[in-house]
Amino acid sequence: MIQHPAFVAEPWAVRERGLDLGLLAQTESVFALSNGHIGLRGNLDEGEPYGQPGTYLNSVYELRPLPYAEAGYGYPESGQTVVNVTNGKLIRLLVDDEPFDVRYGTLHEHERALDLRAGTLTRRARWSSPTGGEVLITSTRLVSFTHRAVAAILYEVEPVGSPRRVVVQSELVANETVEYTSGDPRAAAVLESPLVLEENVPATDGVAIMVHSTRVSRLRVAAAMVHQIDGPERTRVEAQGGGDVSRVTVATRLEPGQRLRLVKFFSYGWSAKRSRPAMHDQVVAALAAARLAGWDGLCADQRRFLDEFWAGADVEVEGDAEVQQAVRFGLFHLLQASARLEDRPIPGKGLTGSGYDGHAFWDTEIFVLPVLTYTYPRAAVDALSWRKSILPMAEARAAQLGLGGAAFPWRTINGEECSSYWPAGTAAFHINADIAHAVTRYVDATQDTRFERDTGLPLLVATARLWCALGHHDARGRFRIDGVTGPDEYSAVSDNNVYTNLMAGHNLIEAADAVLRHPDRARHLGVTLEESAAWRDAATAMFVPYDERLGVHPQSEGFTSHAVWDFAATRPDQYPLLLHFPYFDLYRKQVVKQADLVLALQLRGEAFTPEQKARDFAYYEALTVRDSSLSACTQAVIAAEVGQTELAYRYLGEAALMDLEDLEKNTLDGVHLASLAGAWIALVAGFGGMRAGQGRMCFAPALPSGITRMAFRLRYHGRLLHADVTPGSTAYRLLEGEPLMLTHHGKEFRLAAHPVTRPNPRSPLPEVPVRQPPGREPAPRRPS
Amino acid sequence: MIQHPAFVAEPWAVRERGLDLGLLAQTESVFALSNGHIGLRGNLDEGEPYGQPGTYLNSVYELRPLPYAEAGYGYPESGQTVVNVTNGKLIRLLVDDEPFDVRYGTLHEHERALDLRAGTLTRRARWSSPTGGEVLITSTRLVSFTHRAVAAILYEVEPVGSPRRVVVQSELVANETVEYTSGDPRAAAVLESPLVLEENVPATDGVAIMVHSTRVSRLRVAAAMVHQIDGPERTRVEAQGGGDVSRVTVATRLEPGQRLRLVKFFSYGWSAKRSRPAMHDQVVAALAAARLAGWDGLCADQRRFLDEFWAGADVEVEGDAEVQQAVRFGLFHLLQASARLEDRPIPGKGLTGSGYDGHAFWDTEIFVLPVLTYTYPRAAVDALSWRKSILPMAEARAAQLGLGGAAFPWRTINGEECSSYWPAGTAAFHINADIAHAVTRYVDATQDTRFERDTGLPLLVATARLWCALGHHDARGRFRIDGVTGPDEYSAVSDNNVYTNLMAGHNLIEAADAVLRHPDRARHLGVTLEESAAWRDAATAMFVPYDERLGVHPQSEGFTSHAVWDFAATRPDQYPLLLHFPYFDLYRKQVVKQADLVLALQLRGEAFTPEQKARDFAYYEALTVRDSSLSACTQAVIAAEVGQTELAYRYLGEAALMDLEDLEKNTLDGVHLASLAGAWIALVAGFGGMRAGQGRMCFAPALPSGITRMAFRLRYHGRLLHADVTPGSTAYRLLEGEPLMLTHHGKEFRLAAHPVTRPNPRSPLPEVPVRQPPGREPAPRRPS
Repeated sequence: MIQHPAFVAEPWAVRERGLDLGLLAQTESVFALSNGHIGLRGNLDEGEPYGQPGTYLNSVYELRPLPYAEAGYGYPESGQTVVNVTNGKLIRLLVDDEPFDVRYGTLHEHERALDLRAGTLTRRARWSSPTGGEVLITSTRLVSFTHRAVAAILYEVEPVGSPRRVVVQSELVANETVEYTSGDPRAAAVLESPLVLEENVPATDGVAIMVHSTRVSRLRVAAAMVHQIDGPERTRVEAQGGGDVSRVTVATRLEPGQRLRLVKFFSYGWSAKRSRPAMHDQVVAALAAARLAGWDGLCADQRRFLDEFWAGADVEVEGDAEVQQAVRFGLFHLLQASARLEDRPIPGKGLTGSGYDGHAFWDTEIFVLPVLTYTYPRAAVDALSWRKSILPMAEARAAQLGLGGAAFPWRTINGEECSSYWPAGTAAFHINADIAHAVTRYVDATQDTRFERDTGLPLLVATARLWCALGHHDARGRFRIDGVTGPDEYSAVSDNNVYTNLMAGHNLIEAADAVLRHPDRARHLGVTLEESAAWRDAATAMFVPYDERLGVHPQSEGFTSHAVWDFAATRPDQYPLLLHFPYFDLYRKQVVKQADLVLALQLRGEAFTPEQKARDFAYYEALTVRDSSLSACTQAVIAAEVGQTELAYRYLGEAALMDLEDLEKNTLDGVHLASLAGAWIALVAGFGGMRAGQGRMCFAPALPSGITRMAFRLRYHGRLLHADVTPGSTAYRLLEGEPLMLTHHGKEFRLAAHPVTRPNPRSPLPEVPVRQPPGREPAPRRPS
Repeated sequence: MIQHPAFVAEPWAVRERGLDLGLLAQTESVFALSNGHIGLRGNLDEGEPYGQPGTYLNSVYELRPLPYAEAGYGYPESGQTVVNVTNGKLIRLLVDDEPFDVRYGTLHEHERALDLRAGTLTRRARWSSPTGGEVLITSTRLVSFTHRAVAAILYEVEPVGSPRRVVVQSELVANETVEYTSGDPRAAAVLESPLVLEENVPATDGVAIMVHSTRVSRLRVAAAMVHQIDGPERTRVEAQGGGDVSRVTVATRLEPGQRLRLVKFFSYGWSAKRSRPAMHDQVVAALAAARLAGWDGLCADQRRFLDEFWAGADVEVEGDAEVQQAVRFGLFHLLQASARLEDRPIPGKGLTGSGYDGHAFWDTEIFVLPVLTYTYPRAAVDALSWRKSILPMAEARAAQLGLGGAAFPWRTINGEECSSYWPAGTAAFHINADIAHAVTRYVDATQDTRFERDTGLPLLVATARLWCALGHHDARGRFRIDGVTGPDEYSAVSDNNVYTNLMAGHNLIEAADAVLRHPDRARHLGVTLEESAAWRDAATAMFVPYDERLGVHPQSEGFTSHAVWDFAATRPDQYPLLLHFPYFDLYRKQVVKQADLVLALQLRGEAFTPEQKARDFAYYEALTVRDSSLSACTQAVIAAEVGQTELAYRYLGEAALMDLEDLEKNTLDGVHLASLAGAWIALVAGFGGMRAGQGRMCFAPALPSGITRMAFRLRYHGRLLHADVTPGSTAYRLLEGEPLMLTHHGKEFRLAAHPVTRPNPRSPLPEVPVRQPPGREPAPRRPS
């Protein structure tokens, strides 16, 4: 776990003072820069030491065969793994005769900071070589939000005390050795030397270019770099290139007070179709635009871009500096993962590490897109357009499985299913309703009719068709969906998972409604009146099991009859359970990895009475071990809704600090985007009580004791709203747009030019005592 | 399919006239010889052409890693695969300058016959080489039942018409190329060159010896051969050995009327512990004993052994010559698979092929041992002693899974689980009750108290403990067993599988009863009064779900609510379904691969009323596709019980002719021992209505129209019984032992020295109309 004060809790930055090599891999993920197209892990400029070197381009992957000791029909044959592409962030330094390496010599001072408003990673290091030569090194790195293909580094070195010979080597390197492996099935497969060289043009004329292809997936990757060098008169520059390396060497001698300043612009491009010369030209052109903007121009654009983002997305938190930092850190990474997607997926870890092989999951639609929909909606369009682009593959997969409509992959980069364990992959059909849910939420929030017609409708229709093929009416007329896996990965292949059935029902209704709004386009998709009527019928008849004896909803039919997991006999070191117990045992018992029924309480709240919510929440609290990062924020939201505000606050802390405190000990593989989104969800949907849908935006604010004030901004129906919550009341302001109706704790009001302030009532719900499995209680929040 | 008249339906032999190379692999399995220790596929003497070369020693296997694209806790890391050991049956022939190869020249005559009373495979071939030289070759091969380590071949060649130069090469060859592979997951993994040479002593002094070890599993295998050669005076014999080959070459010139006669004795031994010199000596010693007996002695011993077997096991069938042949063929292969086990397992395919990697499954306990228990009980002791010998591994596996008692492997050679797909492996816990069932049946049949105390009790106790750990009492006090897989492999990981629960309940009761009979030994196993009382409690409270609406038992809880498989839309070429549909789809629908609930009707008949049996049988008939060979015989038994005698007769045909007609098209991988046992089961338990247990032996004979008379023998309580069934009546005789009480159609009678004849009543049950899935009806029997 990253111990404070490794990171200082500043409101607009994540700052590390000193350098703990044991935390290097984690900090590389935390300090990763990305714009959704390019991702650079926060590796040290000089390349070594590293936790895991990482340079990623969205959707550049290699294929690998998926082995099965016993094969089965419909098992995916090959998996996709994100590839560590050409590293352009490498800048080595020689001081006199000693390479700058923090493992040698003396590191007098080291500080790194991720600036959430500037969009830069800065570093300052004061170091003496083993022979005593002291230098001050500063660098500022950015991945441009405004120039999609471009990253840049300002690297400066100056001697301290006495003159120094200094050599700086700026490089492009492909096929770096990736040493990190793990027995943990969640860790990424490691691919050795995935890139085949096609072209290496040294920087003799200024620009260095390298073009490679992946061996099996045949994707072409181009990288280029160019430098602006500012040093004493006798500074000498050389360029070399060969094999998988291209190098610009700058040698000089610096007097105290003198400084070598190097700006490195580097650019990337990739394509499955474009030729080597085309890719070559493309990255050179990107560099030309970057040079035209210049370092200062790139920085100014970056800040302007972020100012605009924060104006519509910021959440202010008073009373808890760590949560304040964490929610902004989370929003920043969400933006980084999605700003320049352009019809590519948002992987579970963004472009911050190779965890989960770089795959995208349902996390995107259920945790990430809800935040982006209200804060940076154009990213939601991009992510859902990617889903639309892989619809043909999802339809082919459904056909392979003997189903109609589309069966979206459980995990993928290119759109093909690469989950090799079907009970937790293929069977998790809820991903299709999750995609439909994200479509519906986006359309509700933005009233973007063109998107609904062109992108939303095909997705809604294809997923509705899947549910019709997947379910059937039983003898009592109930529509059943048997043998599927819900969100909780400690159960699988069950009948009538409540989350799945409710989400599917919503999917069917929303598809039928969308068909009514776009009859021509629906006809084009072959939807008949009979078909959409069948969707409504199935939704109306959807079976939602209920345990009358216990007065709670079973997660799936029969769940509440199963033995309760023996929590008392489970040692703390046996979590996460999946690494210490067989699936067989987990699946057959009442033990919940992550919110499942409780997620249904959040996303399909209208299907439950307040009393049912309170009882259900209490029941599942006692069973939920949170071995997944996709749980705490949901538990926070429902805890808040049922009046367990202090418990919600604990869960907020867990969701928000997942990566800054490395709570799951795997931040080294990349940040947990869904959990980072969860900080916003826990604050806004939890303590703000925000719910939206059917054209209505509702709030029910109530703060926990540790938060004295919370203010958030969000976009809805073209308006920019501001809510300022204090313990006693909430003030609503309309920052942009026309007046609209809102709901505060169940009562509608009109918000126009003048702010509206409403008192926050106390929770009307009696507190149902809740407990968690022993040892799995969320940690108390002690705001610093 | 092997078309008749490839095999001639003789009562005591399986004879092939002519040679169809397309059927070579299948006939190699059908003509395989074995004694349970050594197995020789029916490969042609000259080695080529072959379907699959095969020489096996029981429990000689190689290890191979089991790959997982996504690993999981408790997944087996390595698999075991039966190894093709040193081939000692190879005898090549050169006629003038042409090698005898049936693919060249002219085969005037070719006949092979498996003699079920002599225990030999004979062959007669009259062949002209491409240059016209004609010879008559005859060979007789045996694997000795009385000399466990020994096999022998009498090989004779004589010229037809004119003199011939003849060279015979008799060999030992290790690491033969095994070319057969298949995409079918059921086919065996192929291991290349699994044997590492340790010693090769040529036959210079008469005996040739080869010693090898397997590479990873480190098992040492020794083989030896010696010859008796009888030819014209100028016959010359040479011996060579080197690498993986040892060769004795016999050259002679034969005049018409002269004959070269060669008797080859060869022997095998293997050990995980014994040294190379010890193994060397062991196989030489076995040869010495064989030479002492001589060829005629071995043949006489073989016949005596079989005469004794048939005296206690034979089933006579009149009116259906194919079934007559098939039931004897089945009994013969059962004996071959088990006669000389000596604490080794009976694999699913015996030692007749490498199918299923040579693994043993529950088939042994539920299909094979019931037949052996009543016909050759000492083999049942051996097979169950093997289970006892692997009990420590099964206990370790249970502990690994977080359970008590023993969890026997779903598939194994050495006792370690090597099923890599847990929903159809680990989760199929019924294997433990199946083993207990075989123990109980054997003890009931033999009253073998010593076996019960030393072998049965530890098995019953360990399996009872497993069930107690695996189940739990629910709020209504019912004992539930959730999340397990029953016999039907088209369902998995369900709650309260009726077969499993009933078998587990029986296991618990039988364990508690056995503890009462052997209190001292039980105390030694740590069984307390409280523990055995808990077993009885669990058994009494065992939950058996019942669908009141349909009036049938669901195979597992909830099964009857699932969608019925769309049989109408399933094409004939889409069977077996598992090769054309995902497990996901099969598991969630009402479609049954093989008898599951219907097997419970047979094995736990006392738990059902006759009316329930009829209704349940009819319900599952409509859902059962018989994509497994472990189904037809069970359906035959229950069809007969519920009065569907003609349907039972069809199922008898399917079970009995599985290999002789290659009904599942995989006899090439080895015979289906369980299905061969099924012929006996369908006849004796089906048309004989035989049920035994709790010290009582009951019959309820009723013949189908195609069988005019059936007589069977079986052993019970030290008696040898004979039942002679005609359409109208049944005559019982006591061939050995003291008088005893029997039951005929529900009425007790005493059988002493005098035969007792009783009329066969008509079935009292109304015929419930039954149908099978379209296209999956069993073929009508048309006895030839």
